[in-house]
Amino acid sequence: MATLKVTVWNEYRHERQNEKVASIYPQGIHHAIASHLIKNEALQVKTAVLDDPEHGLSDETLRDTDVLIWWGHMAHDEVQDEIVEKVRSRVLDGMGLIVLHSGHGSKIFQSLLGTKTGALKWRDDGEKERLWVIEHGHPIADGIGEYIEIPQEEMYGERFEIPAPDELVFVSWFEGGEIFRSGCCYRRGKGKLFYFRPGHETFPTYYHPDVLRVISNAVSWAAPTQGAAVSYGRVDPIEKIASAGGVR
Amino acid sequence: MATLKVTVWNEYRHERQNEKVASIYPQGIHHAIASHLIKNEALQVKTAVLDDPEHGLSDETLRDTDVLIWWGHMAHDEVQDEIVEKVRSRVLDGMGLIVLHSGHGSKIFQSLLGTKTGALKWRDDGEKERLWVIEHGHPIADGIGEYIEIPQEEMYGERFEIPAPDELVFVSWFEGGEIFRSGCCYRRGKGKLFYFRPGHETFPTYYHPDVLRVISNAVSWAAPTQGAAVSYGRVDPIEKIASAGGVR
Amino acid sequence: MATLKVTVWNEYRHERQNEKVASIYPQGIHHAIASHLIKNEALQVKTAVLDDPEHGLSDETLRDTDVLIWWGHMAHDEVQDEIVEKVRSRVLDGMGLIVLHSGHGSKIFQSLLGTKTGALKWRDDGEKERLWVIEHGHPIADGIGEYIEIPQEEMYGERFEIPAPDELVFVSWFEGGEIFRSGCCYRRGKGKLFYFRPGHETFPTYYHPDVLRVISNAVSWAAPTQGAAVSYGRVDPIEKIASAGGVR
Amino acid sequence: MATLKVTVWNEYRHERQNEKVASIYPQGIHHAIASHLIKNEALQVKTAVLDDPEHGLSDETLRDTDVLIWWGHMAHDEVQDEIVEKVRSRVLDGMGLIVLHSGHGSKIFQSLLGTKTGALKWRDDGEKERLWVIEHGHPIADGIGEYIEIPQEEMYGERFEIPAPDELVFVSWFEGGEIFRSGCCYRRGKGKLFYFRPGHETFPTYYHPDVLRVISNAVSWAAPTQGAAVSYGRVDPIEKIASAGGVR
Repeated sequence: MATLKVTVWNEYRHERQNEKVASIYPQGIHHAIASHLIKNEALQVKTAVLDDPEHGLSDETLRDTDVLIWWGHMAHDEVQDEIVEKVRSRVLDGMGLIVLHSGHGSKIFQSLLGTKTGALKWRDDGEKERLWVIEHGHPIADGIGEYIEIPQEEMYGERFEIPAPDELVFVSWFEGGEIFRSGCCYRRGKGKLFYFRPGHETFPTYYHPDVLRVISNAVSWAAPTQGAAVSYGRVDPIEKIASAGGVR
Repeated sequence: MATLKVTVWNEYRHERQNEKVASIYPQGIHHAIASHLIKNEALQVKTAVLDDPEHGLSDETLRDTDVLIWWGHMAHDEVQDEIVEKVRSRVLDGMGLIVLHSGHGSKIFQSLLGTKTGALKWRDDGEKERLWVIEHGHPIADGIGEYIEIPQEEMYGERFEIPAPDELVFVSWFEGGEIFRSGCCYRRGKGKLFYFRPGHETFPTYYHPDVLRVISNAVSWAAPTQGAAVSYGRVDPIEKIASAGGVR
Repeated sequence: MATLKVTVWNEYRHERQNEKVASIYPQGIHHAIASHLIKNEALQVKTAVLDDPEHGLSDETLRDTDVLIWWGHMAHDEVQDEIVEKVRSRVLDGMGLIVLHSGHGSKIFQSLLGTKTGALKWRDDGEKERLWVIEHGHPIADGIGEYIEIPQEEMYGERFEIPAPDELVFVSWFEGGEIFRSGCCYRRGKGKLFYFRPGHETFPTYYHPDVLRVISNAVSWAAPTQGAAVSYGRVDPIEKIASAGGVR
Repeated sequence: MATLKVTVWNEYRHERQNEKVASIYPQGIHHAIASHLIKNEALQVKTAVLDDPEHGLSDETLRDTDVLIWWGHMAHDEVQDEIVEKVRSRVLDGMGLIVLHSGHGSKIFQSLLGTKTGALKWRDDGEKERLWVIEHGHPIADGIGEYIEIPQEEMYGERFEIPAPDELVFVSWFEGGEIFRSGCCYRRGKGKLFYFRPGHETFPTYYHPDVLRVISNAVSWAAPTQGAAVSYGRVDPIEKIASAGGVR
């Protein structure tokens, strides 16, 4: 299997500003995720953070990325519009995108889906979450049990302002009484997009084996395909047109 | 049946700059469409054009519009971003939107769908188009035969850069050898969106009885619904949370 | 508005065999639902039960039904295949079908969807169910709050063996820890199909105002449309075929 | 890559009864397709035909098949219901199924989709077909140009009585004026299903390099996935249920 190039992007602010978050993710959420992914020899893994030059997402890096993973929260607004647009173009051109947790409110997620994806219910009380597999034949659920249980997480509740997913893989049950569409697949342009809910910065979610497995599975699923040729713009007719010309 | 308020928006430039277009639509494309819709007593119809103050789309007008019809082409870029954003918000909040023909490249269509909807194949040779009904039970196809034939139209061909429609009602056959997804339904936020392909300014398409009937049907289909209550943001738990609190 | 003809079909066995069920629905589940629907003057409501001749679903009755509501459970196998096939044909030809609760295992539901729709998790412990609205702009959710709470119900849990719904309107949270796709819309042929989960015979669910409202809304949503003309079989070409004939 | 086991099933009647068909496919359509697939070392390919014992689809063969390809036409009715049911169960349990051309009217296709999939328009005049790629990022379109052109084929025209596909990969343009949804993906149970239109027995379509490439691509796409665990039936609550028990 050819090598797949993955870039794990993280805002990387909470970890540097909040002691408790730092104690969970001392080298950042991106490092926790990347440390898992590099165990797979078929993956070539880089990280990038908000405060890198160009947010670590230069043209070269983007060109050289097959699947981009995105975690952001408190500084969505600091991501430059120009770079968001570059990421969006790469996705439409075939790069996979995995948006994690609070990344639902990011500019890149909103711009690709068109709705106000920041809107949902939430509660940061550290309650139990149980993600049920809805599509048990989906490759993103490979090797998972009937559900993933996370002892303590932030709650996200419906109504979540997304377009209906092309494929709905997980739905979460929360101890406090809510439910949420937690694993959502989209095909946009030539690219694939997966939203995966868990991962609040104050809980060790990105060390949970099943959460990591889903992220690994999603990387494989979102990998670019060769696909078919495509072109746009004015074209000559393939068949003879008998009709007289129109008013020009 | 309660009255439905429809605003027909038109760029209204071709008709004032090109004699041949003016000869077909002397009072503008918006006028041709509105003249048809007002025959239905259940509709209250207004028009608005690009060169009106605020493009004719003041806060008051938008608040007072149940379904907005959109035709634009040569001046997409002149539509102010702020007004696009207001229209988008109204759609997500429940207003219906019908985007016609070259409106596929408009800012409002792109911002609601998230893809580069301006990208497609085209040819302006005045060839025959035949729109086949794919979903014969869909209300947008009410009263139509098996297909709509238009003697001369501009061709649009796939690949059309849209997300897969929630419902695909029409697919066009073109004399020159192409096909196109010509009638596409989307649900975004609380609102409904219909894209309908025909309507190049150099052909009398908006006098075609079946084209007008589809637009009328789409107005009914896109009408706002009452729907369910919704709220967002932090919420208290409904059920008691037994878990100890997390790292805060 | 034209009158809509609704037939409420019920197996009507539990109510006659079990005292406790009889105490809740003395005249049967069909009667409870029909008694609500007849308050709407735009509806003309009939009932039919399994032990009627032809299960109360004669050709004439089916021809004269716009929307059929279906409740069955312990006697799915007693429904004659021939009548199932007639109902299926009517749905594909435009009749609306609303399948309630344990009707998920009925022959008619399975034959229209093609999967083993009887397969799901269940538990009959009388726990709390909360149905969250996922699509708050959907007409089936008209007038509902953010959720419907039912104090005691049978639990149904995923994986539910259905094709992914065309529209997912409700997802249930259960006290015991499961979730379920509780309101599922399908378009099949010219007809529309809605599955609605609540309604175990040992609980007074069909007196719950919001449950009744959803059923009413679903009746309106599932009403037949005029639609477009359709025909099948061999047809002559519309356009001239230049190619030489094939090997015949 | 692990070996994938493919069984190519063919009715194999036209080839033995019609000289012209025999001259195109002397060893049968199944042989033409299998001869292509075996060039791929990752595939292990068998064939089976209607007149084999158990139609060549014994329990053992089905258990040992990852992807089943199906071509049938004149003898759909001769396929035993019991074997159809076994194939359907295997698909719902994860086996991929590729239905070709006139297989749209087969019992297995109808039973998995639930609609009258035999209904469509047709014309056997040997006209030009052009299959346009709609989803250019889809793996089933890998390596294809913008369209596939087939000089002479039978025409199939809409309305085609299928549920809206989960993914629509190809749409055909026909010389005689019709269009058709030619490449349709479905996910049913744990299995995947692809319908591919071309392949009338009187034309050498299964020697066309792009048609063969699509079939190869579809085999890879339809391959079973590991997926998640699943179970059905009565389950104990995961969480404590506080509600008093219901009427039992």
